[in-house]
Amino acid sequence: MTGEVDRPEAASSGPSSPVPADGAAVPTVDAPPETQAVSWRHRHLLDVDALTRAELELVMGTTDAMTEVLARPIPKVPALRGTAVTILFYEASTRTRVSFEVAAKNLSADVVNIAAASSSVSKGESLVDTVRTIEALGADMLVMRHSASGAPYLAADVFGGSVLNGGDGWHAHPSQALLDLYTLRSRLPGGSLEGRKVVILGDALHSRVARSNVWTLTAMGADLWICGPATLLRGFEGWAARGAAGRRLTVTSDIGAALKDADVVMALRIQKERMASALLPSLREYAARYGLTRERLRAASPDVVVMHPGPMNEGVEIAADVAVDPRSVITQQVTNGVAVRMALLYLLAGARAGGRERGA
Amino acid sequence: MTGEVDRPEAASSGPSSPVPADGAAVPTVDAPPETQAVSWRHRHLLDVDALTRAELELVMGTTDAMTEVLARPIPKVPALRGTAVTILFYEASTRTRVSFEVAAKNLSADVVNIAAASSSVSKGESLVDTVRTIEALGADMLVMRHSASGAPYLAADVFGGSVLNGGDGWHAHPSQALLDLYTLRSRLPGGSLEGRKVVILGDALHSRVARSNVWTLTAMGADLWICGPATLLRGFEGWAARGAAGRRLTVTSDIGAALKDADVVMALRIQKERMASALLPSLREYAARYGLTRERLRAASPDVVVMHPGPMNEGVEIAADVAVDPRSVITQQVTNGVAVRMALLYLLAGARAGGRERGA
Amino acid sequence: MTGEVDRPEAASSGPSSPVPADGAAVPTVDAPPETQAVSWRHRHLLDVDALTRAELELVMGTTDAMTEVLARPIPKVPALRGTAVTILFYEASTRTRVSFEVAAKNLSADVVNIAAASSSVSKGESLVDTVRTIEALGADMLVMRHSASGAPYLAADVFGGSVLNGGDGWHAHPSQALLDLYTLRSRLPGGSLEGRKVVILGDALHSRVARSNVWTLTAMGADLWICGPATLLRGFEGWAARGAAGRRLTVTSDIGAALKDADVVMALRIQKERMASALLPSLREYAARYGLTRERLRAASPDVVVMHPGPMNEGVEIAADVAVDPRSVITQQVTNGVAVRMALLYLLAGARAGGRERGA
Repeated sequence: MTGEVDRPEAASSGPSSPVPADGAAVPTVDAPPETQAVSWRHRHLLDVDALTRAELELVMGTTDAMTEVLARPIPKVPALRGTAVTILFYEASTRTRVSFEVAAKNLSADVVNIAAASSSVSKGESLVDTVRTIEALGADMLVMRHSASGAPYLAADVFGGSVLNGGDGWHAHPSQALLDLYTLRSRLPGGSLEGRKVVILGDALHSRVARSNVWTLTAMGADLWICGPATLLRGFEGWAARGAAGRRLTVTSDIGAALKDADVVMALRIQKERMASALLPSLREYAARYGLTRERLRAASPDVVVMHPGPMNEGVEIAADVAVDPRSVITQQVTNGVAVRMALLYLLAGARAGGRERGA
Repeated sequence: MTGEVDRPEAASSGPSSPVPADGAAVPTVDAPPETQAVSWRHRHLLDVDALTRAELELVMGTTDAMTEVLARPIPKVPALRGTAVTILFYEASTRTRVSFEVAAKNLSADVVNIAAASSSVSKGESLVDTVRTIEALGADMLVMRHSASGAPYLAADVFGGSVLNGGDGWHAHPSQALLDLYTLRSRLPGGSLEGRKVVILGDALHSRVARSNVWTLTAMGADLWICGPATLLRGFEGWAARGAAGRRLTVTSDIGAALKDADVVMALRIQKERMASALLPSLREYAARYGLTRERLRAASPDVVVMHPGPMNEGVEIAADVAVDPRSVITQQVTNGVAVRMALLYLLAGARAGGRERGA
Repeated sequence: MTGEVDRPEAASSGPSSPVPADGAAVPTVDAPPETQAVSWRHRHLLDVDALTRAELELVMGTTDAMTEVLARPIPKVPALRGTAVTILFYEASTRTRVSFEVAAKNLSADVVNIAAASSSVSKGESLVDTVRTIEALGADMLVMRHSASGAPYLAADVFGGSVLNGGDGWHAHPSQALLDLYTLRSRLPGGSLEGRKVVILGDALHSRVARSNVWTLTAMGADLWICGPATLLRGFEGWAARGAAGRRLTVTSDIGAALKDADVVMALRIQKERMASALLPSLREYAARYGLTRERLRAASPDVVVMHPGPMNEGVEIAADVAVDPRSVITQQVTNGVAVRMALLYLLAGARAGGRERGA
């Protein structure tokens, strides 16, 4: 599912860097992306594993420009005027669905929402037919969430425009990993993850958020730790060992070792349905042993950054007071999500337009 | 839940009145509210109990201006361009949800709809977290409906923008009461409720419409009667006695006394699920004893105004022929609802912007 | 249900033809329809049975103009600016609902979606009251789908604007028949159906698509065959015999006779719930006897056009390889659907505006 791991490259600056560090790129996102000198080569965003370090930097720089747009009195640019974006979600969602919708509308795109529950998808139409239909209805970009890992890859095979994965099964949640990266860059001193100890805490086994974050965080040089009950790490350990070779990644169920001097702790949502599968004893026991409390956070760096992808089970994987602690950036994650998704839609639209010009 | 009852004030005209009686205010709503000389001080609209008579007049005058906008070939003004309105409904709705959506779009706001059933709310996220997330996604105004009385107050505690209550449990439905008031003012001779006999007929106990209407109708000087089966009034009697002291309010199960010479009769929707709770014998018996029929209406004033908040159970609380009788203003209530909600969004946006300027 | 069958008329050209054959009409759809010299007399689109051949030609010509709009970089015209379109669907749908939504937005109309499942319709409100409410909320045009045959006729009786039937029970699906007609005209040599053998294959009994197509296809002179298991034709035979007198229509369960030298084959969706009603033995047996396979298609004309209204049960009524065969126009049907619905909204808006001017 992932193929070769891209070698991280040093590309944070230099003449080929499309977004100058001085922020001069800011005004440019007001115009259509195909008129810009950006060099984004991906038509789809299916996972972050295909992104080089230079490409991650390009997303970050473009997100800076979008953050500037969001600060305007009217947070809109005409960049994607005439572009049709369809949001097809097979799973319930608030923040990711709305985040993509707001992002697309801020770029002046036309948005159509399709919730699978009230669509003909409930009549048993195949995903491939649904995607073909959406394209025939005029969609240029398709944002999708699906409970089956790999579904967006299938969609990308048949869709003539760009597919953005809004989360597929346990596999990937690339826009989440990118908004997490952006949030950390804006919060950590110097904006660098190099050598920083980052802990992902919880049910990594069933987490697309964890999987996508492994790629981006290790690509940026973080010292990544995955911590949780052994039953929820076992499969993940193997996955990590195969896929992330050469990167700094520790998998452990020892929460004391994990949190010690941590610069960042990202708590994962516990899916209550995991209880039934006997992988977890009880929510209470999980909270007692792995819940992120103020007490436990004392072992971490004094400036530790607390993250959570949401929605939270307060009192289970994260204590209510930790969620609203000044060290928590959970709300900023949501806000940055809109900016990152604006950047992704913008970059992909440019790749699509560029490809079209080249006859691809 | 309600706090002090505001003393009704005489403020229908005079130099401080922001909306002149001659209608000169009409053109001004084309511009952003923060540029207007309106003096609206509320950031949220949670119930009508906090509104003074002068404020009710301001809503009415602003609604006049919005009614003029609705009569244009293209019923739109740019007043709320760049304002993001999220409509979060935890209960099913057509008219209120669509009414707010149309109202916001007519003011050129950007609207996002979230139906709780297909959102991550179904994953058990707390209301407070959902509201924080909606704000972080960029919402300036939040319109919400919730089955729990008081939920919008909780939301207002954490939301940085404006909360508009679209109905909470049995507690309040302020925009409904205001559209009812507007409809009556435009229908009654002289536009005044002073001394008019207004009857609210039906299940007042479980009705947020009744509760909010008590405040506005008595504030405007109406002689208000609440009439229904004793089992559906008992709790309400106590509530009314505590909260509406000093206002003209009669609670009775004698429909003959209630309808006699009535100037206005507002039939309430019977919720069929009340049957199960043994508070009502049967729909048939309810219809026989309290259904609003032409026969019964003969006791009322010849010019009686018939109202219903919808959706109707025709043949139960209101006869089908009464619903479409020339004396019925049920359709006008719906149309006025769009204008009133435009006025509310406009006024609250101004209060928000004003507060922002003053650093609040 | 249908009344008199309009006599097909020769009206494809001549001075009264509102859309010249040379395509000069193309630019005109950028302007509001009431300023055009079109002569469309229907306020509603409930079925195609009321359309004369000249009117069918007018829809086709207007659709040509809309197809040209769709080919523009920004596929939008301001023709319906300020027009409010409400889409009320009581049945699940992707393609028809989204197609109307995209069509309306391409014409710059304001669109409100109401899915019955999450609306107060679930509270038992009558259709008539819902329609009155939608009008009072400001809707100028109502697109509706309902499981009850005839529901849009009921809606049209009370709605002051235009009703477009998006599918009612087994009765009619007029926009589907018109997009099918448009697709065939653009695909068949010379653009003419005159004398062409067209086969509708499958469950015609329960198919609103089949019923509406009978009218348009025979009106345009096609030699129409309806083919399927006898149990799924019996009722249809009677319906066809009564309603389509004087037109070329053959009903048969002999698939060999039907497909022989066919110019067009339209496979219908098999509703799996039909199995329970004992009208069909099993999906497997249906596929074996009536599924549209490459093998079976050999009997048809080499240039046969393959159609399906979607969503498809691949491997049941149509083989997967036939669906994506170069002779299949299934994807084009979807794309043409947007253009046809733009044309319908445009023409009906003109009729409405014209009627308004004449005081009707």
